[in-house]
Amino acid sequence: MDCSEDRAYRLLNEYSNGFMISQVLFTACELGVFDLLAEAPEPLGSAVVAARLGTSPRGTELLLDACASLELLTVETRGERAVCQNTELSRTFLARASPKSQHNMQLYLSRTTYLCWGHLAAAVREGKNQYTKAFGVPSNELFTAIYRSEAEQLQFMRGLQEAWSVHGGAVMAAFDLSPFPLICDLGGGSGALARECVSLYPECRVIVFDVSEVVRMAKKHFSFPGEEQVSFREGDFFKDPLPEADLYILARVLHDWTDEKCSHLLARIHHTCKPENWNLVPSFLSV
Amino acid sequence: MDCSEDRAYRLLNEYSNGFMISQVLFTACELGVFDLLAEAPEPLGSAVVAARLGTSPRGTELLLDACASLELLTVETRGERAVCQNTELSRTFLARASPKSQHNMQLYLSRTTYLCWGHLAAAVREGKNQYTKAFGVPSNELFTAIYRSEAEQLQFMRGLQEAWSVHGGAVMAAFDLSPFPLICDLGGGSGALARECVSLYPECRVIVFDVSEVVRMAKKHFSFPGEEQVSFREGDFFKDPLPEADLYILARVLHDWTDEKCSHLLARIHHTCKPENWNLVPSFLSV
Repeated sequence: MDCSEDRAYRLLNEYSNGFMISQVLFTACELGVFDLLAEAPEPLGSAVVAARLGTSPRGTELLLDACASLELLTVETRGERAVCQNTELSRTFLARASPKSQHNMQLYLSRTTYLCWGHLAAAVREGKNQYTKAFGVPSNELFTAIYRSEAEQLQFMRGLQEAWSVHGGAVMAAFDLSPFPLICDLGGGSGALARECVSLYPECRVIVFDVSEVVRMAKKHFSFPGEEQVSFREGDFFKDPLPEADLYILARVLHDWTDEKCSHLLARIHHTCKPENWNLVPSFLSV
Repeated sequence: MDCSEDRAYRLLNEYSNGFMISQVLFTACELGVFDLLAEAPEPLGSAVVAARLGTSPRGTELLLDACASLELLTVETRGERAVCQNTELSRTFLARASPKSQHNMQLYLSRTTYLCWGHLAAAVREGKNQYTKAFGVPSNELFTAIYRSEAEQLQFMRGLQEAWSVHGGAVMAAFDLSPFPLICDLGGGSGALARECVSLYPECRVIVFDVSEVVRMAKKHFSFPGEEQVSFREGDFFKDPLPEADLYILARVLHDWTDEKCSHLLARIHHTCKPENWNLVPSFLSV
């Protein structure tokens, strides 16, 4: 094989083995490997990890080896024993107790997205999602698979919350939003981005607008007593009246919908927007 | 985020999205995208690809875009139309008609391995494979999932045949095997490596030793009329007598078994090996 063919072959193998790497990551998260190592006062050998997690010794040894090869763990030898500990990546982004943990996002990808993507060929053939095959739930609505159980919905909302814990501050700081005292975050889920916003702009208030089952979960699991600057409002942004506001945020929303639905949503925001704000750019902020 | 934390976060996202990249590749193979473009006299737009493959226009457009972002396709604009064609990677390794095609290996990974790996957490917990969950077949034997249907077995054998079409020549040329007139390839499947061997060493004969269902499939689908240097023998290398030979090959075999089983197999080969070959190194070749 010549050099460029060799490179192409290596790239192909990276692609075709990519799902194995995802699953090593997801499995170590699900079994609690990174949490155990984060809490342990010293590096642990695979036999100890297996005993504490209640997993098979041989399977655990292989999993930890795979994690080490991916920079998810480091391994060193103490006496005659190999022991492992978290790397910066797993300590910062995978251990559950870390403020930047992406633990729930991994579980959501593993339990929902991985299964849906197993039917990608059928999805491309039919031009529609494969929730029926993957989960036995109807496929006409986009979020049916995610909202198929309260546990799954909670995991998804926590996953997005985690994503905003990494990016939210930077996104909110990218523009000066201080001229906008009242902001509406359309499809704002748990309110994670709203909280980043009020922490940066202490004078503003944010209304999180989302469908009723999301608002219910947000109030139950994500709201804080005495929280005054962030409030929740129930509604479907395609048909219900939108709250009045000085600025509308659409963050991680437009990519979920067809061009037609996006046009409709943007037109609705334009009609609702106060005329005195029309000359302020951005009078809506889409991330 | 500082620089090393940013790098860690990017790596995490590469890992957690790896399965999507695998599925884009598998789906384009399964739907025949690369074959259609290999046969077309000119680059094709996504609407034409969708019409020829009988797939949804929107799903096809998104799939082709994803393939382009992965160097599996190139896109150019002709007039007002975006058209795409194969890259070196897809032309050489994915189009079915290419002599180095890895098409069947992708389908095997997609239809068998991807599903098994969806149960990795349970596999690590229990220390055993998850064929029962993935396919409803017994899990005590290693190849049960692969041999669950003749179609799946054939695809697996074709996949390995394809892998040897890329590596086999180099592996057989890495050592001078001309001193060995009679070679036995243990677990040699379709005989792909055996054929690479006799093409490099025209004086030698190779016996491919494998279990009965593999030998049956090899004779039915992979043997050539008049082929004299490569022959097949049925048996279980853990318990049946091994053919006499001057050299034994174990290629992509040892990684499938526990250390205990490998020791047993290697001891059996040692006992069968002709004493006059004991001082020849390697008297068996393990890849």
